[in-house]
Amino acid sequence: MFAVHDFLKSAQTGAVAVAAALLLVTSAKAQSDPLPSWNDTAPKAAIVSFVEKVTKEGSPDFVPEPERIAVFDNDGTLWVEHPMYTQLAFALDRVKAEAAAHPEWKDKQPFKAVLEGDMKALAAAGEKGLVELIMETHADMTHDEFQKVVSEWIATARDPKFNKPYTELVYQPMLELLAYLRANGFKTFIVSGGGIEFVRPWAEQVYGVPPEQVVGSSIKTQFQMRDGTPTLFRLPQVNFIDDKAGKPVGINAHIGRRPIAAFGNSDGDLEMLQWTTMTGGSVRFGMLIHHTDADREYAYDRKSEFGRLDKALDAAAINNWTVVDMKADWKEIFLEK
Amino acid sequence: MFAVHDFLKSAQTGAVAVAAALLLVTSAKAQSDPLPSWNDTAPKAAIVSFVEKVTKEGSPDFVPEPERIAVFDNDGTLWVEHPMYTQLAFALDRVKAEAAAHPEWKDKQPFKAVLEGDMKALAAAGEKGLVELIMETHADMTHDEFQKVVSEWIATARDPKFNKPYTELVYQPMLELLAYLRANGFKTFIVSGGGIEFVRPWAEQVYGVPPEQVVGSSIKTQFQMRDGTPTLFRLPQVNFIDDKAGKPVGINAHIGRRPIAAFGNSDGDLEMLQWTTMTGGSVRFGMLIHHTDADREYAYDRKSEFGRLDKALDAAAINNWTVVDMKADWKEIFLEK
Repeated sequence: MFAVHDFLKSAQTGAVAVAAALLLVTSAKAQSDPLPSWNDTAPKAAIVSFVEKVTKEGSPDFVPEPERIAVFDNDGTLWVEHPMYTQLAFALDRVKAEAAAHPEWKDKQPFKAVLEGDMKALAAAGEKGLVELIMETHADMTHDEFQKVVSEWIATARDPKFNKPYTELVYQPMLELLAYLRANGFKTFIVSGGGIEFVRPWAEQVYGVPPEQVVGSSIKTQFQMRDGTPTLFRLPQVNFIDDKAGKPVGINAHIGRRPIAAFGNSDGDLEMLQWTTMTGGSVRFGMLIHHTDADREYAYDRKSEFGRLDKALDAAAINNWTVVDMKADWKEIFLEK
Repeated sequence: MFAVHDFLKSAQTGAVAVAAALLLVTSAKAQSDPLPSWNDTAPKAAIVSFVEKVTKEGSPDFVPEPERIAVFDNDGTLWVEHPMYTQLAFALDRVKAEAAAHPEWKDKQPFKAVLEGDMKALAAAGEKGLVELIMETHADMTHDEFQKVVSEWIATARDPKFNKPYTELVYQPMLELLAYLRANGFKTFIVSGGGIEFVRPWAEQVYGVPPEQVVGSSIKTQFQMRDGTPTLFRLPQVNFIDDKAGKPVGINAHIGRRPIAAFGNSDGDLEMLQWTTMTGGSVRFGMLIHHTDADREYAYDRKSEFGRLDKALDAAAINNWTVVDMKADWKEIFLEK
């Protein structure tokens, strides 16, 4: 959060000198310990050991810089995913914002449920209802219009439990990890089950990940000349679901190389970690974030109705993936401002 | 060709010192003239003027480095596309190589036409026949297997007219342009109508463009565990056609920012150049390579049955795109070895 986010914000408002000073402080600190929000437990040691192996020239485990690809799930891995995916909170807010233009929604599910705050009825609408919500709120506009709507929403919306902007509910240890990997020649990608165009408008500022390094689910777009202006128009049709077995497909489509490190937190990340680590060849790194901290964040795993970590937890034991116990392994979860 | 290709080849065989020396010579030369294979005509001046504008800090046309995205068509823009797309030559060779395992092809079009070298019958099979050929030769194998087949073929196949490997039929002026843009903070992407997985295995060595910066057409892939090993399996179904109106869609899907410079050579690149340049805002650059040199390469445009440059040539005049006359504007076309 601190370094990238604040630096960019400051630079934008002209306070470059202050931000540069902050950055110097941050990097001085980073030299002594690149992962200060991690406790000195096994996961931190495993990360550092992996990075030292693949970056040591002449070592049998050395990996040339262009092949140092690391992939990160977003929801629950880089930021909070409870009590609902942030993108769903966005969709619900959009329904409310657009309700006046859609009087028919008062009597039509799942919109009625959203407008009445009836989460039980919304849940009953199931995946079909969810897709309807997404299509109504994410399509039938140009790409530029959608980017604007997302940017405005993310700048103002707040998480109800923590009463903070969602972009401040990113995990400080993971921001340090992203920066540490990049400082060691890695290219860091986000591989989200969420919408690629929902993540891109703010990923560079918040995570230091540029739009071309974001992979995600998508709806179809179409090139159209409108009043002599070329536009990309968002169609209400699913194009690609970047979740579960879709993640390796999305990774290959966008990156074209197999990653050497993958970070996730749920069964939706299982195939991504398998694809990354089960190669029988060179050294690889797989990590799962286990949400164990009901006090500072949330605690959930196998029996959760949401963001379930079950099969992937079993696979971690078999495949030697590192499991982070948030409560025990993270000194800080969020950066206090 | 020279710098990147030879450097990588040499480095791989251990002759690092020689390659490094070559690189020093190349960069010394580049300092005096970054585009030595371009004649001092209008297109070269237009390129240099554009790059100087967008890289000059404080200038109203300045573009921050992360936004310096340049997109290049491949066939006919970076390498020779006549008398047929190289990928088609690959498909025909694959049919011949696999014919023994497919005795039924002897009597089945379009395979019969390929095996008999009957190009007229092949043309008569049309687009449907072409898709059949592609599916038979590009699918029903794992991603890794296909990469291996492409790599082996590109290392040995030769263009019949020039009697050279296809990877030596890349345009030296365009290699210089790619390097010049990168030296000025641009990220260079290939946006090909051809198959993304046909270009990726050699694009880094030949063009200096890594796999994650290649956009192209694709077939569907599926994640499968095979004998306990995760694989991506190539299915005989079209996923995406990255041509014409598909190019802006592919660009947005992969890059997520609008390019500021686009380079093409045919009507297949029209929408890509429109999407890049027609924004009404900041300074942009569009360029078309016009094949005018029947002696050194080929001459074709509006009436060509293949790789037609017609509507895009009209649009160039309206939109102020730079048109390269290969015969007049390029001092060298290929690097003589």
